[in-house]
Amino acid sequence: MIKVKGGVTAPKGFLASGVKAGIKVSGKKDLALIYSEVPAVAAGALTTNRCKAAPVKVSLTHLNAKTHQSIIVNSGNANCANGKTGQRDAHAMTSGVAKLLKIDERMVLVASTGIIGQALPVEKIEKALPALVHELAKDKGTDFADAIMTTDTKRKELAVKIKLGASEVTIGGSCKGVGMLYPEMKTAMHATMLAFITTDASISKKMLEESCDEAVWGSFNMVSVDGDMSTNDTCFIMANGLAGNKKITGKDANYKKFTEAFKYLAGELAKMLAADGEGATKLVEILVKGARTVEEARAMARKISISNLLKCAIFGSDPNWGRIVASAGASGVDFDIDKTDVYLGPVKALSNGSIDASFTKDKARRYFKDKNVYITVDLKSGRSFARAWTCDFSKEYVTINSEYST
Amino acid sequence: MIKVKGGVTAPKGFLASGVKAGIKVSGKKDLALIYSEVPAVAAGALTTNRCKAAPVKVSLTHLNAKTHQSIIVNSGNANCANGKTGQRDAHAMTSGVAKLLKIDERMVLVASTGIIGQALPVEKIEKALPALVHELAKDKGTDFADAIMTTDTKRKELAVKIKLGASEVTIGGSCKGVGMLYPEMKTAMHATMLAFITTDASISKKMLEESCDEAVWGSFNMVSVDGDMSTNDTCFIMANGLAGNKKITGKDANYKKFTEAFKYLAGELAKMLAADGEGATKLVEILVKGARTVEEARAMARKISISNLLKCAIFGSDPNWGRIVASAGASGVDFDIDKTDVYLGPVKALSNGSIDASFTKDKARRYFKDKNVYITVDLKSGRSFARAWTCDFSKEYVTINSEYST
Repeated sequence: MIKVKGGVTAPKGFLASGVKAGIKVSGKKDLALIYSEVPAVAAGALTTNRCKAAPVKVSLTHLNAKTHQSIIVNSGNANCANGKTGQRDAHAMTSGVAKLLKIDERMVLVASTGIIGQALPVEKIEKALPALVHELAKDKGTDFADAIMTTDTKRKELAVKIKLGASEVTIGGSCKGVGMLYPEMKTAMHATMLAFITTDASISKKMLEESCDEAVWGSFNMVSVDGDMSTNDTCFIMANGLAGNKKITGKDANYKKFTEAFKYLAGELAKMLAADGEGATKLVEILVKGARTVEEARAMARKISISNLLKCAIFGSDPNWGRIVASAGASGVDFDIDKTDVYLGPVKALSNGSIDASFTKDKARRYFKDKNVYITVDLKSGRSFARAWTCDFSKEYVTINSEYST
Repeated sequence: MIKVKGGVTAPKGFLASGVKAGIKVSGKKDLALIYSEVPAVAAGALTTNRCKAAPVKVSLTHLNAKTHQSIIVNSGNANCANGKTGQRDAHAMTSGVAKLLKIDERMVLVASTGIIGQALPVEKIEKALPALVHELAKDKGTDFADAIMTTDTKRKELAVKIKLGASEVTIGGSCKGVGMLYPEMKTAMHATMLAFITTDASISKKMLEESCDEAVWGSFNMVSVDGDMSTNDTCFIMANGLAGNKKITGKDANYKKFTEAFKYLAGELAKMLAADGEGATKLVEILVKGARTVEEARAMARKISISNLLKCAIFGSDPNWGRIVASAGASGVDFDIDKTDVYLGPVKALSNGSIDASFTKDKARRYFKDKNVYITVDLKSGRSFARAWTCDFSKEYVTINSEYST
């Protein structure tokens, strides 16, 4: 596997665009499109929030179609809690694109991100659609990545190349989402996290769905910025087969190789989300190991990753590691604290439930000043492990989120 | 029921004290004691965190004794994650008090609050015990309330008086806890929330336990500052019978009257905790009504109360009420958004799943400037309801918690 340049347009046959439709008050790009030159199979992981935004509902229906060719995305408005009007507007987006691209409406998927509970300015979107389609190009992947951002400070895209038999297969992706970020998506995710993956692999829809589930589980679904689950979280993947590899129709060696590459790409994109979390100054990785089951490791890692107290401590380089122990204990996982070790990077803090003899506050304080903070909790009770990613909690997060809609 | 002056020493036969033992670097009072002149029955609700502090473990054992006469509390150190040494030190506190008061060690309960994972300076505590016992007095309830505080900015105490038959019964209480606050205590709670209730009611231990469960469930267990559950949460109640009422031994009219007064006292103390939350500028009450069951109402109210995004919006008077909808949807409760109404005080924001026609951002912005913010979610699907309390999320919270141990 090698990294290659670009994002969603890196695989063969994918074009993209991003334009200014006037949804964002800032006047920045806010409408984005992906198009596959040939019909592709698609899989989606969408929010499990009970209050789903209109585009999520529309995409869940459209995903039942056999093939797809396009994804339209707007930022600046979530089109959520807008009742029947919201549904109509989401359909206006997919049918408008379908008409211009001369494809069936159900071949178009849709995603929105932004403020909840404000009518979508759908007439602005409709007016911008011709330009959006006209702009579609191989070199407009960055425009797409820019147009899906909200409070993101950095464009997020990545692509990798693998060999499946004699064929070169590329997987590309772009994502956004730095607040209201605590996804728990199902083959069909959640945070307002949006992730769009494209590939020229030849793979059946069923195998793509399974691969998507596997990749999302250990990546996007293990990221948290604030523990607030969104109504709009969406991850779509489209596979158009143009790489010409022998079609993946079962869980063979090629499926595994493809899924490993997909997992890697999703994991790296997930870390980009955490590192760019609202107000973030540091990327934090939490590894829980020595657990009896991966579900327990995952539950504990995720619980620790949403501790406001720990995240504040890391922001201030305050060596208050006891907050890790309190969160682990609050995770609902049954474990023996008297067997548990905790490390802050190379610094051992807790040894078998007591402060490690070598621990000093100064060592911890120095370590917490790093840009990347690694925390390890070793339960020494089994062989299972899980990783979760988050960021520190700064005053800037409060500033951003106390003035978001004004 | 009438409010009366004082806190834990308001009921007959209870004395208290608070001294400076030198545990807190600030040099403020940090060691506190309650003493009943006659043996009392006691009930406790303690943290359900899997990682329990040493004093919690010791108190859980001591609660098996039939009667109790004293509660010792230190602030400045949680005595948690200290292994066997922690256990020994917690016992040193209860046995030291027992010796000076000439009572059985098991009649003494213990609670600690402060930093996790630092050895308790037990020799300082032992040195201060004679003064602590010597200071015991009817007028030292405020010293007790001061000595249990950590980042609290205000002393929290309250007492009420009711009539049971011809007898006047008083219930008094004091509590602390403004961070790492998300209790879920069982007759035996959690947050570092400490609450100490005293009463001169005559009541059996079994009925006191049931009454404690009922009172905690709708009060302390519905408060959140940051969603971080503590290792040390504790609520103790002692009843010494000196009021001379006919002993409550079953769920009769007097039990109900007593429990209503206890609930009121606990509810008011709980609101004091939320209002004094770390960095708080506002008290927020969330009412979920029209639910099918009280468990669903409670789950949704609690989930909304821990939304960092909503709490930031309220801090900044940003009318971003969509975050209420997103949190309600993330609560795991199955409900119909298209039947749901949301109110910000008197301002209707959501009506049957869509923005209410009368809603304006300006109305919401004005309302969010109030010191007390009331949010109502009406699911219109049943008759059950629940209330949760929290505070807004300010930059000051981050400041406090990024420099806590340094």
